[in-house]
Amino acid sequence: MKINENYLKLNESYLFSKVAKKVKDHAEAHPGKHIIRLGIGDVTRPLVPAVVDALSMAVSEMGNGGTFKGYGEEQGYPFLREAICGYYAKKSVSLNDGEIFVSDGAKSDLGNILDIFSPDNAVLIPDPVYPVYLDTNIMAGRRTEYIDGNAGNRFLPLPDKSIKADIIYLCSPNNPTGAAYNREQLGLWVDYALENKAVILFDSAYEIFVRDEALPTSIYQVDGARECAIEFCSLSKTAGFTGTRCGYTVVPNALVRDGVALNKLWLRRQTTKFNGVPYIVQRGAEAVFSREGLMQIRKDVDYYMENARIAADALAGLGIWFTGGENSPYIWLKCPNGMPSWDFFGHLLENYGIAGTPGAGFGPNGEGFMRLSAFGSREDMIAAMERLGG
Amino acid sequence: MKINENYLKLNESYLFSKVAKKVKDHAEAHPGKHIIRLGIGDVTRPLVPAVVDALSMAVSEMGNGGTFKGYGEEQGYPFLREAICGYYAKKSVSLNDGEIFVSDGAKSDLGNILDIFSPDNAVLIPDPVYPVYLDTNIMAGRRTEYIDGNAGNRFLPLPDKSIKADIIYLCSPNNPTGAAYNREQLGLWVDYALENKAVILFDSAYEIFVRDEALPTSIYQVDGARECAIEFCSLSKTAGFTGTRCGYTVVPNALVRDGVALNKLWLRRQTTKFNGVPYIVQRGAEAVFSREGLMQIRKDVDYYMENARIAADALAGLGIWFTGGENSPYIWLKCPNGMPSWDFFGHLLENYGIAGTPGAGFGPNGEGFMRLSAFGSREDMIAAMERLGG
Repeated sequence: MKINENYLKLNESYLFSKVAKKVKDHAEAHPGKHIIRLGIGDVTRPLVPAVVDALSMAVSEMGNGGTFKGYGEEQGYPFLREAICGYYAKKSVSLNDGEIFVSDGAKSDLGNILDIFSPDNAVLIPDPVYPVYLDTNIMAGRRTEYIDGNAGNRFLPLPDKSIKADIIYLCSPNNPTGAAYNREQLGLWVDYALENKAVILFDSAYEIFVRDEALPTSIYQVDGARECAIEFCSLSKTAGFTGTRCGYTVVPNALVRDGVALNKLWLRRQTTKFNGVPYIVQRGAEAVFSREGLMQIRKDVDYYMENARIAADALAGLGIWFTGGENSPYIWLKCPNGMPSWDFFGHLLENYGIAGTPGAGFGPNGEGFMRLSAFGSREDMIAAMERLGG
Repeated sequence: MKINENYLKLNESYLFSKVAKKVKDHAEAHPGKHIIRLGIGDVTRPLVPAVVDALSMAVSEMGNGGTFKGYGEEQGYPFLREAICGYYAKKSVSLNDGEIFVSDGAKSDLGNILDIFSPDNAVLIPDPVYPVYLDTNIMAGRRTEYIDGNAGNRFLPLPDKSIKADIIYLCSPNNPTGAAYNREQLGLWVDYALENKAVILFDSAYEIFVRDEALPTSIYQVDGARECAIEFCSLSKTAGFTGTRCGYTVVPNALVRDGVALNKLWLRRQTTKFNGVPYIVQRGAEAVFSREGLMQIRKDVDYYMENARIAADALAGLGIWFTGGENSPYIWLKCPNGMPSWDFFGHLLENYGIAGTPGAGFGPNGEGFMRLSAFGSREDMIAAMERLGG
């Protein structure tokens, strides 16, 4: 038998594992030193009370013969899909619950969605980018082309009509750069996709951090997107679900390729290779979208965004170029004095006890940049900026 | 762009959806009629107290800043992987926790594992079989051959050396036939796989129902299996987790193909396209393997097995040929008078108010057979057998 040889073309180690190892080694070599971790984008605030209450109630139901739940629909319980439709309605996006697929997170769906596309498709990936987009396509042996994000376009690349792509990845607000497309810019991508009969895979995992009301928080706020885009979102950052695992994917009924509704293909993929999200977790997710839940998560998002503001103000004061820090929990900064990313990573860790994520880990165009995350505590962010002299 | 055209080769509807629809239509046409559902293999007993307590405690932890958990390792928390190793140790199978991958269920892993194999591999699938094995391979465009289960071999087919296969599916105790391989029979499969450098995908989802101590409950109880088999198991049937979602897959370090350890490939697949099982659920799963948890789930398994015994005794009394009913929660019976499966399904539903699963839905060799499940209530099973005159 043969293995999938495409796996041998992957980089040996995953970026975040490499960062974690370097930070761990440094901590072990310097016991007692307080290292401020602004690296991996993991949340730190606990689940909000509305979610905890809903989870607790669901646990009780599962322990009682009269209310116990076995298999649910693979695409999620109607109560949760309807709650998600309600959330979209507030964004003036009208969806029906058959267009929503509940999952264990955006990472899974972003990887698994490729199953419904031919391996012959050409893929367009922005650089720098969340490494999962590239790795999952290498695994499938697809041709990938890059579109350059750089300081010149403030890391918001726009379509290049000379490139013919079938599958296009967009993430806004962006991971790692924190940059967010406006409606006109997203409209250019939608027009390009419609012209090329391409499909946009739109990662909106950070939509909750958008505070500028003029910026879109869903690609479906742009005309024509229902005919060319699949949207992936997650409660990981929205509601602190990184360890609780729930996300959702929207495949509009109007999205048809080769005469086939992609919604039907994805439904078939999910009913065949997935058995749904735990009932308990779906009840917790439903509570996120309740009036009380939305008010409570808003406070946590505000907390993180205040961290981002503190970092942004300090970096501006130091004259450091960056994107993000508003409408995003990430700050993407240019390493001073033209230092390469991994050198600056070592410099920050050694001399300031601060762990960031080297931009080079997100692609060649990330070289010379560094990502900081606002998901830590207020005390840590203030201390980090004081150490930097900001 | 092109879709994955292999999807167009799939049957339009999933077996269990079709059965559910027919039962629903019948129920609506006959209001007030009590239909006994012995069809889909879903559990009905609630989660046991040890699991409920562990889930509740974990929910509290998630609501507290000091004990909150964000991302965990994709392959599962060490506490759960160690508990699973302990469970295997009781079967005299020694594994280390790096060989265990916690997942949201066997269905996901059985589908996703194919990602690490070349699409050129030839696949050997027993007929009849759990439909997911076939459908996931059709989606990937692989060549599949069948090996015949039938009354002659009591639905326990053995290797045919004239067939050259790279990937072999085995499920024991079997879904749908309830038949369980003994050590000698599994040994023949292991020898065949080693000779052909093939990989066995061994589905042990029903291992907890084996009561005959001479029968294997893990393929690793057979010499040589570590060099040729991946084992998939689930807490769905073991501990009533169909709606709670947790399973595990074992990829031994000794399993190497093309010079590559499959453990490393699967780790790469999971770290790239999966973000782990909810912390809360992992704590519930850990409790399944505690002394208290194992005692409590044993009672529920006994309950279901008593249902199976009642059905088996009644069918034997009626002179109906069947497999299963011991060491398995399924009974696989020959439809009387040579009736085709779907005709007998309609006959049972119309005249006896009993819903089974037509054997033909599990493959051509299932034609003329019917699967009954023991996962319902005692009252329903007794009533069903009385209706049949058993």
